[in-house]
Amino acid sequence: MEDQQATLRNAMTRLDLTRDSFADRLGVSRRALDSWLLPATSGEHRRMPGVVAKLLAGLPEAPPVAAGAPGELRARFTKRGKPHLLSVAQFDRETVEALLRVAEAMEPIARRRKVTRVLEGAVLGNLFFEPSTRTRVSFGAAFCRLGGSVCDTTGFTFSSMVKGESIADTSRVMSGYVDAIVVRHPEQGSVAEFARHTHLPVINGGDGTGEHPTQALLDLYTIRREFERLGKSVDGARVAMVGDLRHGRTVHSLIRLLSLYRGLTFRLVAPPSLEMPPALVEAAAAAGHKVEQVATLADGLRNADVLYATRIQKERMSGEALEAYPADFRIDRRALATLCSPDTVVMHPLPRDGSAGANDLSTDLDDDPRLAIFRQTDNGIPVRMAVFAVLLGVEHLVGRDLRDAPWISPARLGPGDAPFHRLA
Amino acid sequence: MEDQQATLRNAMTRLDLTRDSFADRLGVSRRALDSWLLPATSGEHRRMPGVVAKLLAGLPEAPPVAAGAPGELRARFTKRGKPHLLSVAQFDRETVEALLRVAEAMEPIARRRKVTRVLEGAVLGNLFFEPSTRTRVSFGAAFCRLGGSVCDTTGFTFSSMVKGESIADTSRVMSGYVDAIVVRHPEQGSVAEFARHTHLPVINGGDGTGEHPTQALLDLYTIRREFERLGKSVDGARVAMVGDLRHGRTVHSLIRLLSLYRGLTFRLVAPPSLEMPPALVEAAAAAGHKVEQVATLADGLRNADVLYATRIQKERMSGEALEAYPADFRIDRRALATLCSPDTVVMHPLPRDGSAGANDLSTDLDDDPRLAIFRQTDNGIPVRMAVFAVLLGVEHLVGRDLRDAPWISPARLGPGDAPFHRLA
Amino acid sequence: MEDQQATLRNAMTRLDLTRDSFADRLGVSRRALDSWLLPATSGEHRRMPGVVAKLLAGLPEAPPVAAGAPGELRARFTKRGKPHLLSVAQFDRETVEALLRVAEAMEPIARRRKVTRVLEGAVLGNLFFEPSTRTRVSFGAAFCRLGGSVCDTTGFTFSSMVKGESIADTSRVMSGYVDAIVVRHPEQGSVAEFARHTHLPVINGGDGTGEHPTQALLDLYTIRREFERLGKSVDGARVAMVGDLRHGRTVHSLIRLLSLYRGLTFRLVAPPSLEMPPALVEAAAAAGHKVEQVATLADGLRNADVLYATRIQKERMSGEALEAYPADFRIDRRALATLCSPDTVVMHPLPRDGSAGANDLSTDLDDDPRLAIFRQTDNGIPVRMAVFAVLLGVEHLVGRDLRDAPWISPARLGPGDAPFHRLA
Repeated sequence: MEDQQATLRNAMTRLDLTRDSFADRLGVSRRALDSWLLPATSGEHRRMPGVVAKLLAGLPEAPPVAAGAPGELRARFTKRGKPHLLSVAQFDRETVEALLRVAEAMEPIARRRKVTRVLEGAVLGNLFFEPSTRTRVSFGAAFCRLGGSVCDTTGFTFSSMVKGESIADTSRVMSGYVDAIVVRHPEQGSVAEFARHTHLPVINGGDGTGEHPTQALLDLYTIRREFERLGKSVDGARVAMVGDLRHGRTVHSLIRLLSLYRGLTFRLVAPPSLEMPPALVEAAAAAGHKVEQVATLADGLRNADVLYATRIQKERMSGEALEAYPADFRIDRRALATLCSPDTVVMHPLPRDGSAGANDLSTDLDDDPRLAIFRQTDNGIPVRMAVFAVLLGVEHLVGRDLRDAPWISPARLGPGDAPFHRLA
Repeated sequence: MEDQQATLRNAMTRLDLTRDSFADRLGVSRRALDSWLLPATSGEHRRMPGVVAKLLAGLPEAPPVAAGAPGELRARFTKRGKPHLLSVAQFDRETVEALLRVAEAMEPIARRRKVTRVLEGAVLGNLFFEPSTRTRVSFGAAFCRLGGSVCDTTGFTFSSMVKGESIADTSRVMSGYVDAIVVRHPEQGSVAEFARHTHLPVINGGDGTGEHPTQALLDLYTIRREFERLGKSVDGARVAMVGDLRHGRTVHSLIRLLSLYRGLTFRLVAPPSLEMPPALVEAAAAAGHKVEQVATLADGLRNADVLYATRIQKERMSGEALEAYPADFRIDRRALATLCSPDTVVMHPLPRDGSAGANDLSTDLDDDPRLAIFRQTDNGIPVRMAVFAVLLGVEHLVGRDLRDAPWISPARLGPGDAPFHRLA
Repeated sequence: MEDQQATLRNAMTRLDLTRDSFADRLGVSRRALDSWLLPATSGEHRRMPGVVAKLLAGLPEAPPVAAGAPGELRARFTKRGKPHLLSVAQFDRETVEALLRVAEAMEPIARRRKVTRVLEGAVLGNLFFEPSTRTRVSFGAAFCRLGGSVCDTTGFTFSSMVKGESIADTSRVMSGYVDAIVVRHPEQGSVAEFARHTHLPVINGGDGTGEHPTQALLDLYTIRREFERLGKSVDGARVAMVGDLRHGRTVHSLIRLLSLYRGLTFRLVAPPSLEMPPALVEAAAAAGHKVEQVATLADGLRNADVLYATRIQKERMSGEALEAYPADFRIDRRALATLCSPDTVVMHPLPRDGSAGANDLSTDLDDDPRLAIFRQTDNGIPVRMAVFAVLLGVEHLVGRDLRDAPWISPARLGPGDAPFHRLA
């Protein structure tokens, strides 16, 4: 029953408890709690006893997350007074959850049901010093959906920088033209350098092997939304990360962000020489999570709540490493049927290698409702809208300004989309 | 007299008759009918007898074209429930005329007299996988004039596709960001492949040697508007197509679209080896049109109502073919004076080769009011606005939302524009 | 005292007098007048005697600059009935000042305090046939801040021009799509050629070694605003121009624009073979200004009100010239301390060469409030807004249409910005 799930999840959130500790608190087994949290349609769903409901009602409340005065959230995750989003290290759990609640409030707009013009008159500088079409368009479309205008720069060179201009000058000059700046740059640290020279909101759109914080945010947002549908909570979740865990900045940022939660189990499945950097493993362990480095997909995916696959970048591997690369890393329909449960959430930062036989997420999964990869990219819009709205201090104004979108949007975006993934 | 022309043209449209069959129906000669349809200022204009007017009033009415409930036109020319514009094969005569009537309703906006914001909040993905600046800007400006925002991608590569991403994934990912998508792609069939993976409106902006349906629509729109001024009707018209008829996708789409009308005569003037593909010739003939393949400009242009010239793409011709290419294919002031009538409409899909001596439409015609090439490109805006409005289901809302444009626009756009080609 | 300064400056403006001639008119020494015009906080500030105030009140008024009926200013600086901005030669003093007053009226929008939508529905064609990211974004953002939309083209090639299309055809085709056009082109004269074929507003965004009139306008606007703060007037100012004065089109346009004022002293400091072209020197002298070509920075900067530095383009210099290049052309903290007064305004068209030891404006000046280079680029927005508003005839409508910007902007844009350089 919807109410039972909602009641339990709300209590876990309010008390900030993992499933295990929540089961402890209630004095029931984890297995029993899990069965109460399953959808009513599941064969393994069970009603919780009336006494539990009474117990829940009597539990003391944790202080609620502050409702948020205008600009308060902005102040909370900015650094040294500057409204910058450069790294996931800026977040604590409360702040990231407040931000993702703003993203949820953006859904009616992201789903093309409502229109806001709150940023009408504002201009985004969307500066891509290396090409990344999808990320550029995602940021641009998110800003447009808030009512703003976008000035893009694309390509490998910025004409004035070719003439010897410093990042500092470029940053200050662009700041005179626009109201917020997204920077994508091939070199780690250069976005922070850019941000140092302006007081405008700067968002790191990916800096080489560094960070890509909005990707991690939309990944977390996706996990939370999928779990909400499945009656799960992030606390205590089992997350398998598969592929090139050494170079993939998205898994680096995601493990740091998930470590803000409690009692997770990370299973890291990487070929030799492509393992997750030790510092990240240690940080997750130090935050109280289980981190298991396993050798096979089978070990990694057992009971996994989330499977986060990444593209193997063969061009970065030596011949030896490539030979050692286990052929069974390919994640396809057969692997999912064998290794995953019916409610595993399958994610990927995209692009994936769609060529036949690629050691990547196979396209034969495209009709499988567990495949969340397009829900994941779709989520980039509300999450980036939330980031812009918060950094520009207008998140509390969006709701006042909504009107119906007059054009016709399809109920579903893609022919392979899961039945529950709808615009309408 | 304006009234006489309008009465006759309306009757022909209502009865869906060609000039020849209309003359038959009235029991008069074609020559007489032609003289009644000429502008009053023409020396050959004649008043029609009063008895004809009475006859016209008594003719039975054909059922009027449906006024069109919201979304109805959209439903009519979409394929398998998807609002895509991929090919002119999607059209029947009634549908294409309904669409062009929507384009006419866009004229006050396209002429910068009125402003609409009906698509405010909507975002266009303007994806050009091969460069075509004018087409990209035309689509982009049309979407802006409806109140929407545009995210462009340009250049030969789409960064994620370089990493092995399939068209299917690109399509589905972009669909999460925007509300309508224009795709230009160098490979025939790739736009249809793109469209297969999304339920959003997709418009073929040109796919290699395949189709470019909005070009054919604006060509037809131009012919109709020019004919309206001249008191002619598309049924029964004589259309000369000149140049490289083998490779030019614009003439391929246009002959198919014109074949929806009745009793046309197509005169095809192409050098050896650059003739119109036989399948297209046969289809036009099967639809009841005369198709004449002629060898010289002189034979082609005699009595032509429309001269549609195309650029000869020398780079595609073998040395032999190039030598066989008749020098008198150059269309200049002298050729027009010798071969065309005073009301021939001269069209070209542009760009034309403006270099001296090029075997193309000469720039010495730029002040000749018969040269319709810039009226033709101007028409791209209302036609593409109509396509967007219909595919997004807002064409019935545009009229409710108009306000005056406050900025000053010139009465005429170019110094060589014909006196009757005015914004104001 | 603010009132005293304002009274004197207003009188000079009203009477159209230089400082020297104004001092003559009042019968006082130039030194006395200067001391009255200094800020009250300056140690050398003096109160003007009461008798002078009475004298001022009795002076006859020059006819005021016309308030400007809608479209009047537009008519005044257009050429042959076309609203084009191609060259600073289009301006007389009254016209340029009227235009810069419109720019001042744009400041609340440029500073993100107010939002206007006066150009909502209008489209800018921002055509950059050579890359210049900052200039492109500055024009684009200015148009967006007026409420309009922007279609950009970037890169070295315009795909249709590659196929042999003439500038004339490109101009006329684009005119059918947009409402105003900015053209940047590597060849001198090509923007004028582009403008010849359209009646739409065309703005020269830089044509090779030709002109870049909006840069000269924003330079003049900067000088006027800096002088206003310092209690100085353009008439009679001492302006040092330093660097490559031969190739720098910005200094060419600026000396012509400043020559519309009265009694200036230009000190030109250039290495051998990079001197200002003689024609420009002679024109300035013929307009009644002092032009001094000096050999050293020390000679050039003595008592300079403005120091306008330009980048030395080493790649354009022969080996000999490069050797002859005086090492002391580097303008850094030490040079400013030694050679400039406390209220010299230091300008540069940017980009500057920020690498260590570059013979350019040094980055060690970035915290010096005399460094006006970022105030200068910031001023590009209100100036370009003014140009668009005037050419499109809406400058009188902007004030009626203002509303508050709802998003949060920082009080200062850059950490090194001078205390008086604030958005708020």
